[in-house]
Amino acid sequence: MEERKKISMAVIRRLPRYYRYLSDLVDNDISRISSKELASKMGITASQIRQDLNCFGGFGQQGYGYHVDTLFSEIGKILGTQNNFKIVIIGAGRLGRALAHYPNFIKRGYEVTGIFDVSNTIIGSIINGIEVMNIDYLKSFTKLNKVDIAVLTVPSSSIRDVALLACEAGIRGIWNFSPKELDLPDDIVVENVHLSDSLMVLGYSLTQKND
Amino acid sequence: MEERKKISMAVIRRLPRYYRYLSDLVDNDISRISSKELASKMGITASQIRQDLNCFGGFGQQGYGYHVDTLFSEIGKILGTQNNFKIVIIGAGRLGRALAHYPNFIKRGYEVTGIFDVSNTIIGSIINGIEVMNIDYLKSFTKLNKVDIAVLTVPSSSIRDVALLACEAGIRGIWNFSPKELDLPDDIVVENVHLSDSLMVLGYSLTQKND
Repeated sequence: MEERKKISMAVIRRLPRYYRYLSDLVDNDISRISSKELASKMGITASQIRQDLNCFGGFGQQGYGYHVDTLFSEIGKILGTQNNFKIVIIGAGRLGRALAHYPNFIKRGYEVTGIFDVSNTIIGSIINGIEVMNIDYLKSFTKLNKVDIAVLTVPSSSIRDVALLACEAGIRGIWNFSPKELDLPDDIVVENVHLSDSLMVLGYSLTQKND
Repeated sequence: MEERKKISMAVIRRLPRYYRYLSDLVDNDISRISSKELASKMGITASQIRQDLNCFGGFGQQGYGYHVDTLFSEIGKILGTQNNFKIVIIGAGRLGRALAHYPNFIKRGYEVTGIFDVSNTIIGSIINGIEVMNIDYLKSFTKLNKVDIAVLTVPSSSIRDVALLACEAGIRGIWNFSPKELDLPDDIVVENVHLSDSLMVLGYSLTQKND
């Protein structure tokens, strides 16, 4: 795996997109595809595809293209889908509840094992078959269930404290939905979903079109 | 505005992050900041900041740094926050409802003006003060209210039809929360939030750390 560590995050960020397209091909029983066909579907160049996949050793055969099943499963392995990552959701408000029902987690190999909140009116309620627990139990739950990832859907005002709590509990991956960024120890992996950043980029592009 | 069209999307995608940090500074009554201090807060280099902001004509003064209010408002203008973009949410399921309550829309100058669904059990219900309408009214509502952006939180199976419907209704910006990508006319701006892509990048980084 040493070689993989040198691969740029730009390439890594494109892999889930390949994975999604390949997942569709698998669902449609397509067993083989050329880089040209895949490129045309994805709106990129065949050379980009070959270049990206070559970072991981290729997978294609000259004159044949790609075995869809193999490529799908290999990209899945690179992305860690076989690791059955265990997730807890911290913050059972509207967004937390929506994410607890998100069907693609399971499809992509992630399992929501626990949901936590601080509010007595929410603790004890059932969300998608899971009882919301008091955040005081986060640490013991994490140890017992070997939780990998905490999804943080708490208000911005408490995001830093909750993130630190998750780290203390032994969680190594943070999926942060707050607009705040987190300054955590180096061994913690943080992935941010800054929704309003995405909306503002849309606003920028619309402004340009209207000028 | 001609010059701005040449600015790379990589720079544009960094602007909302500057905007967020500056918004915090404004909230904390900080009126002046050097590129070095801002860089240190944001975990990037001062040279990156100067380079990014120079794309838009600079805004800084040698030896003084940046006027926080001015920089915040100028970046806001570039991003289109003064345009008061009008949004409709199509798909009033859990994610749609969560987004309808998202406080940062208003803070960033976006207004949710309508919510639409196809389900008779949802149509007529009130979400954050807005009555959910039948999607049949999308076209007339859009014309009357000059809607700019449709947030699509519908199931993947209907995303393409709903996106086309929004375009026919005259909407020019699509914020797509489905894992499917959309092939729409060139004058439509599409911004995707592919949640499972983001989660899989987190999974990749965790896999690397564990190796």
